Amino acid sequence: MIQNLTDLSRKLDKGVLRSADLVQEALSRIAAPGGQGDVVFLRTYAGAAMAQAEWIDAARAKGLSLPRYAGVPLAIKDLFDVRGEVTRAGSRVLDEQPPAEADATIVQRLRAAGFVIVGKNNMTEFAYSGLGINAHFGTPRNPHDTSEHRIPGGSSSGAAVAVAEEMVPAAIGTDTGGSCRIPAAFCGVVGFKPTSTRVPKDGTVPLSTSLDCIGPFATSVSSCAVLDCVLSGGAGEDVASFPEGGLRLAVLEGYVTEHMDDQVGAAFQKMLSRLSARGVRLMPLTVGELAELPKINSKGGLVGAEAYSWHKPFLETRADFYDPWVRERFGAGQSQTADDYIRTLEARARMRSLFAERTEAFDAVILPAVQIVAPTLDSLKDPAKSAATNLLCLRNTAVGNFLDLPAITIPCQESGALPVGAMLMGRTGGDRHLLSIARGLEGTIRGQ
Amino acid sequence: MIQNLTDLSRKLDKGVLRSADLVQEALSRIAAPGGQGDVVFLRTYAGAAMAQAEWIDAARAKGLSLPRYAGVPLAIKDLFDVRGEVTRAGSRVLDEQPPAEADATIVQRLRAAGFVIVGKNNMTEFAYSGLGINAHFGTPRNPHDTSEHRIPGGSSSGAAVAVAEEMVPAAIGTDTGGSCRIPAAFCGVVGFKPTSTRVPKDGTVPLSTSLDCIGPFATSVSSCAVLDCVLSGGAGEDVASFPEGGLRLAVLEGYVTEHMDDQVGAAFQKMLSRLSARGVRLMPLTVGELAELPKINSKGGLVGAEAYSWHKPFLETRADFYDPWVRERFGAGQSQTADDYIRTLEARARMRSLFAERTEAFDAVILPAVQIVAPTLDSLKDPAKSAATNLLCLRNTAVGNFLDLPAITIPCQESGALPVGAMLMGRTGGDRHLLSIARGLEGTIRGQ
Repeated sequence: MIQNLTDLSRKLDKGVLRSADLVQEALSRIAAPGGQGDVVFLRTYAGAAMAQAEWIDAARAKGLSLPRYAGVPLAIKDLFDVRGEVTRAGSRVLDEQPPAEADATIVQRLRAAGFVIVGKNNMTEFAYSGLGINAHFGTPRNPHDTSEHRIPGGSSSGAAVAVAEEMVPAAIGTDTGGSCRIPAAFCGVVGFKPTSTRVPKDGTVPLSTSLDCIGPFATSVSSCAVLDCVLSGGAGEDVASFPEGGLRLAVLEGYVTEHMDDQVGAAFQKMLSRLSARGVRLMPLTVGELAELPKINSKGGLVGAEAYSWHKPFLETRADFYDPWVRERFGAGQSQTADDYIRTLEARARMRSLFAERTEAFDAVILPAVQIVAPTLDSLKDPAKSAATNLLCLRNTAVGNFLDLPAITIPCQESGALPVGAMLMGRTGGDRHLLSIARGLEGTIRGQ
Repeated sequence: MIQNLTDLSRKLDKGVLRSADLVQEALSRIAAPGGQGDVVFLRTYAGAAMAQAEWIDAARAKGLSLPRYAGVPLAIKDLFDVRGEVTRAGSRVLDEQPPAEADATIVQRLRAAGFVIVGKNNMTEFAYSGLGINAHFGTPRNPHDTSEHRIPGGSSSGAAVAVAEEMVPAAIGTDTGGSCRIPAAFCGVVGFKPTSTRVPKDGTVPLSTSLDCIGPFATSVSSCAVLDCVLSGGAGEDVASFPEGGLRLAVLEGYVTEHMDDQVGAAFQKMLSRLSARGVRLMPLTVGELAELPKINSKGGLVGAEAYSWHKPFLETRADFYDPWVRERFGAGQSQTADDYIRTLEARARMRSLFAERTEAFDAVILPAVQIVAPTLDSLKDPAKSAATNLLCLRNTAVGNFLDLPAITIPCQESGALPVGAMLMGRTGGDRHLLSIARGLEGTIRGQ
């Protein structure tokens, strides 16, 4: 399957491809016997998607003017409202809620740009973990290990696997502490988290109103840039490749590298050597204050307080419907005081200002998206181990959420190895510039 | 003393007035035997102010180019940083804090516009009450009753009295729940509260970071408009008078009128008749949801949580230095949960959107600034009565803080009566438009 969105758009426009074929191919891959479509997708819109694709093909054949991505199949995470259906957010807790009265704004924007939504992807229940385990609907296998069941990463587990297994060219997820970038890194695709205010969040089940972001998964920076443009209200422009030579990257060390496993360490180091060979200027940077983050968030942080506040009525009436492991995570938010919450907001403001100052002389910051490769599901059976691994998976990506920086992960491992993500972080609001830098560096990061 | 800032500026510029005379007059009035300068001002800068005034007069005589308000005396509330001195905020709690390293931004702006700061005004300890009672430094008398000690209103008690007694032409205060507008209304001057983000708050002892505003006291809307311009970073422009005829005002009723005393009710009603006679179109408006405000804030509200968070270290180490009546108010914030705080923020967002919708067809909203005239100090001896009266004093003005609307109070009582304030509220960010409307209506509101 061709996966670059600009290529797909051009070929559809020229009549070289038909939308009905693309959508049929997507649906066939999802439904393939022996495949994991049933655990990667919690819902598919086979009939509606095919009808829409055929309408688009017919309209195109008649010479009607269509939006740029008319006919391109796409998947969305299970927490976005689609008019007329109950939004479940990977849970059974909301089953008795009324159906959504309208599409989420981002769903409207995607449809208006011509995308054909083929289904909703599996996710961690309520997006409240970075591992991608779902006790209700099953946990997708990481596509990069056929011998063992490694986790896909989360919370947007299905989105990453759907793109990695070429069920769809791209998918939309959310990212509160790394939920786009962790599964993208573990599954070897590109995942982008924008500045938190860039994409409107109405019609989305929230985890943390302060930290939630909506971002794309795809197989290239270019496709992520196209989707970022659509999600933020544009027509679907790509970005130009920013020239590599002379770019100044801060290589973040310390808090974000101290638990790196050998595979991540080796792949990341080789990737840095390739960047250096291309004339990128690398400077190590340690921001010691980042080590305060676990303490700052020790009472549950913003996500703990905000998630508890949203879930309170459901915890009171439908507690038994939660995965106990997820439900337990709401405890911290419940006991958090207003003073704790205000202090976290103040710490966030201080840390943002300090980090902006330390990185002022750089074009972007680079670090591993996750310090370890995807662990096996078996290794996470012990709850304490699972909790610790979850925190480690979230550790690097959550820096971008706390500081509200755009960030993108690009695969940097050698061919055949377990995926490793190299993450670039930009400045608040500098989303397009970061995407442009990422597009310029993508080939070198991948080692192509 | 001439009190209009534009008049003062012109006369100084023409050499008709000398700054040294103005500053001397201010200092003399403050120091007048038998006067209440010592309770209205907690600190004066006699030497520095006179030296500055003389420098300005000399420079002007030499034909040097000076800022527009060069030489105009002014007072500031005791909670603004002045470089080199400990900021006390009407309290003894901060006595051992280090001196301020820099002037507050607003102090810098006032000085850059040429104002000569003659002293710091008394206030409620930490601005945490609307009555203006100060257990440490005394409570200024309301200037409009010589027979009984009526309260001046607070928290910016000294600022209002200093302007009402013509010690200074204008003064700068803060307003978290009504602290500019309550004392202005009780003392018969004009008090303006801007949109909360309009004036930078660095170098100011906070009460509530969400609700605090910095605003002026003066004897005219024109002078308030000049100071609002300076405080928000401009050169000190006045506003034009918006034409009265055809203006559409919503007369807010219900929550903001149900406890009106006879004096306020009668003055406000006569004022409305005057407006009507001038062609202002008045429509009664009841926003029933405002009655939910006491419940929304029953756990201390944003101010409770944010004030407690700032004061926590001082409550732990210097609790005995607080006025017990003020200290007791921090209790609600201490027991507030993060969930309570987040729900208040959500309620605020909902109420703001609802109020904006209901008032969309009006140019401004008008209501009494306070539902009662200034009570006597004796009537407030009982703590329960004092607490209830405080809430009643804050009731109408706090609506503007919760909804983040600019608001201005203008005296509307008959000559010789106790002051009554008519308050105009505008739209968030529409500060200059509200000032322009207020300037157009001022004469009619005053009955001149």
